[in-house]
Amino acid sequence: MKFEFTAARIAQALDGVVEGDENAKIVRVSKIEEGREGSITFLANPKYTPYIYTTNATAIVCSKSFVPDKPISSTLIRVDDPYSSFTKLLVFYQKEKENKKLKGISLRSHIHRKAKIGKNVYVGDYVSIGAHAEIGDGCKIYPNVTIYPYAKIGKNCLIHAGSIILNECEIGDNCILQPGSIVGSDGFGFAPLEDGTYMKIPQTGNVILKDNVEIGANATIDRATMGSTVIEHGTKIDNLIQIGHNCVIGSDCVIAGQSGVAGSTKMGNNCMIGGQTGIAGHLHIGNGVQCGGKSGIFADVPDNARLMGAPAFEGHEFKRTYVHFRNLNKIVKEMNDLKKQVAELQAQLGNNKKE
Amino acid sequence: MKFEFTAARIAQALDGVVEGDENAKIVRVSKIEEGREGSITFLANPKYTPYIYTTNATAIVCSKSFVPDKPISSTLIRVDDPYSSFTKLLVFYQKEKENKKLKGISLRSHIHRKAKIGKNVYVGDYVSIGAHAEIGDGCKIYPNVTIYPYAKIGKNCLIHAGSIILNECEIGDNCILQPGSIVGSDGFGFAPLEDGTYMKIPQTGNVILKDNVEIGANATIDRATMGSTVIEHGTKIDNLIQIGHNCVIGSDCVIAGQSGVAGSTKMGNNCMIGGQTGIAGHLHIGNGVQCGGKSGIFADVPDNARLMGAPAFEGHEFKRTYVHFRNLNKIVKEMNDLKKQVAELQAQLGNNKKE
Amino acid sequence: MKFEFTAARIAQALDGVVEGDENAKIVRVSKIEEGREGSITFLANPKYTPYIYTTNATAIVCSKSFVPDKPISSTLIRVDDPYSSFTKLLVFYQKEKENKKLKGISLRSHIHRKAKIGKNVYVGDYVSIGAHAEIGDGCKIYPNVTIYPYAKIGKNCLIHAGSIILNECEIGDNCILQPGSIVGSDGFGFAPLEDGTYMKIPQTGNVILKDNVEIGANATIDRATMGSTVIEHGTKIDNLIQIGHNCVIGSDCVIAGQSGVAGSTKMGNNCMIGGQTGIAGHLHIGNGVQCGGKSGIFADVPDNARLMGAPAFEGHEFKRTYVHFRNLNKIVKEMNDLKKQVAELQAQLGNNKKE
Repeated sequence: MKFEFTAARIAQALDGVVEGDENAKIVRVSKIEEGREGSITFLANPKYTPYIYTTNATAIVCSKSFVPDKPISSTLIRVDDPYSSFTKLLVFYQKEKENKKLKGISLRSHIHRKAKIGKNVYVGDYVSIGAHAEIGDGCKIYPNVTIYPYAKIGKNCLIHAGSIILNECEIGDNCILQPGSIVGSDGFGFAPLEDGTYMKIPQTGNVILKDNVEIGANATIDRATMGSTVIEHGTKIDNLIQIGHNCVIGSDCVIAGQSGVAGSTKMGNNCMIGGQTGIAGHLHIGNGVQCGGKSGIFADVPDNARLMGAPAFEGHEFKRTYVHFRNLNKIVKEMNDLKKQVAELQAQLGNNKKE
Repeated sequence: MKFEFTAARIAQALDGVVEGDENAKIVRVSKIEEGREGSITFLANPKYTPYIYTTNATAIVCSKSFVPDKPISSTLIRVDDPYSSFTKLLVFYQKEKENKKLKGISLRSHIHRKAKIGKNVYVGDYVSIGAHAEIGDGCKIYPNVTIYPYAKIGKNCLIHAGSIILNECEIGDNCILQPGSIVGSDGFGFAPLEDGTYMKIPQTGNVILKDNVEIGANATIDRATMGSTVIEHGTKIDNLIQIGHNCVIGSDCVIAGQSGVAGSTKMGNNCMIGGQTGIAGHLHIGNGVQCGGKSGIFADVPDNARLMGAPAFEGHEFKRTYVHFRNLNKIVKEMNDLKKQVAELQAQLGNNKKE
Repeated sequence: MKFEFTAARIAQALDGVVEGDENAKIVRVSKIEEGREGSITFLANPKYTPYIYTTNATAIVCSKSFVPDKPISSTLIRVDDPYSSFTKLLVFYQKEKENKKLKGISLRSHIHRKAKIGKNVYVGDYVSIGAHAEIGDGCKIYPNVTIYPYAKIGKNCLIHAGSIILNECEIGDNCILQPGSIVGSDGFGFAPLEDGTYMKIPQTGNVILKDNVEIGANATIDRATMGSTVIEHGTKIDNLIQIGHNCVIGSDCVIAGQSGVAGSTKMGNNCMIGGQTGIAGHLHIGNGVQCGGKSGIFADVPDNARLMGAPAFEGHEFKRTYVHFRNLNKIVKEMNDLKKQVAELQAQLGNNKKE
């Protein structure tokens, strides 16, 4: 669905009031400095006020209290809070889009006769849904998705193209799998044998994603050796992330791109993990922990810790320490100066003694 | 296939003896502290002995020599070695499952008439197998897999959903490709031109995976510019790993998640590489090398080295050094104290001289 | 297509002259030290000259000016510049291959009746192309690709198996998507709510890849919240890379495997980014910036900077500093020695005074 609305329709969605052309046609959202014909833009931050007089945007969302001191050519949509209106507009558009989205089940997909499919489900082309799999009401499953036998998916989930959900894995309600994400690949478990080769340890557990979880594009969540790898309610996992077998990730965590959590680690709730962070296996990470990008966590972490570095330690301390690290060249020079001075002092005192 | 066996059936699989209800129905494997009705659990580590008297597990695998000092309500399965019995049970279950797995070739797949398919091959929905491709006996190929023309796959391989094997790549016997893994994408080779743009260097080689290799979910193995990128016998490669063009990875290596090896590097046998490690291109990594997670290897590594850090060096040394790094703030303070003290000494000696 | 040419055919492709058997059959390209029957090899670097007398290669490409001082059994193909001939041969082979590649549109693919498909397009099995999508002339789209509605692809693009291009994303001419790459997954944007949960911010923008861009296997390029995530002309992005929403990556950049760029960062032209580098969000990276592998960039970077480390700073400085870091153990010992010496001096001077 193309973005195309009148100023009046948008004002209605935002609980706003139109000042200017109600029928002005809006076809895109732009930054105020990049507005052109067809653009709607937002004046939330006062430092951008000068642009309101010069922009070519067709419409501008601004505060009800805004008083211009020059003429404005754009149509205004006055709202209580221009800042939150931006998100409101995006949500409105998204919903309009969803309403027009593809429906029905493609004839070019294969749903095993022993699978259960809920109501109002969309299934795209070349989707394979295995025996005994269950898909809840209102799910949208895009093309080229594979759902293995005995997988269970809750209501209103969005499973993007190319995602793979393996056997016996369970996904809650309102979850989103971005394209190419994998839920339930085998954990990395091998027993070393005496001849130096490895025997694969069967990974017989599953993955459980609770409600409102989002998994990023091409991310991989490994199934447990036994029991379950669990991602709790509301947690958001970014692209290209690896979650190892038997991990439990708490609720409402936000883990940024390319991070990895090794097997059997338990993370608390409300953690924020910077991109490319690595967390070793068998650790306990507390609640409310935050760490910077590229952190390497090799030990348990207490609640509410703030970490940086690899191996990671307290963030402010890391920054202070890193300043010294960058000064090491100078520090070593000073040390060498000191050594010379001390040697001179020693020599001098030796002389003194001899005198 | 659901996990569901009688105590007697499991005892038979484990060469064990039932003490209690032979017909007790077992539906899951649990930790001893989490056992409930239908659970089987293992007592291998004596520190968990107290749980054997309180667990609600239906059955417990324990040593033949175990002598309880209180009554036990669960059925016991006595074996020689409870610890290895756990893996034995998983393998037994996995085999039972395999035996019930889907067989035959889906009518919704496309096997080019010039491709050769072995005996007892399973091919799932929406699999495309190109001209002159060869698939060995006993392979299982899950839905939405693409096998390009001239690719060759040995016997008894398991190719999970969404995996892609590109033209002319060769895969040995008993290999496992986890979902979304890619074998034979183009190496990253570009020749800079005088105008600052790049010309793609065609990547005309292939990838060879020897027998018993496992490739993790969404991992990528690039084809060689010419010749072959090779993963030797028995090596296990975890999720989201990148192996660059022309690499040779030795046999029985274990490389953990999100690690990367840049082009043309040769790694020896029996290496263990921690997660998120990066290894630069054109290096020689010896046999038996081990490195910690997040290592950055920028130089050749001799046999049996133990490495940490980025750039990496000897592991114990790294740990010692890192302690000093964390103390840099204190070290700098001490240095400043020393400077003051030396200045005072100098001043004092100057005074002495004047006297 | 198998590599199989006569010496004469290759000489013609390289503007070379055959000295020996014109009909010699060449079936592979080898390194000179690994040449065997059927191999063609190149003598570009004089230090390999001794091999020309001992190799079993069927043919050798060498300089027109090369004067052997012993008999050579292989057929020679004499050219002006043996070094560039190697790339020339690869390009020749690639083109021959392309000419024999699959053509036409598989009956096992689904092109929405409202999609527009150019001339001479190849579409493999199980490709789903959505409504209003546009595919330019000469594109080759391999099996199991998903193209969402309203996506636009220019001319002569190569879209490898399993790639996914989401709605409204735009791809220029001559682009290559390696297998499993994803263009247009949702950016990672969530608004924290008062109860600690997160609200998804709809990602309504798109991704624009300009002409001659290459995206690596299983790499992910997120769509903008609004507006566009842009990869400019000629930029090459390696495997398993993450580009965040609203990023703009300049032209002719080369970004190596497993690197990540967080949201809204703008990178200039002609940058070279080492593997596993992480770049934080909302930064400005200048033109011509180069950084080593595993760099962590947390601040703006001026034009032509050379960086290493995490957090990254000037590369030579980093190397010098890292030498000191590795010496910290020794530095601390020297410091302790100095402390002792100063204490002795202080004691001695105290004694002096007392005298």
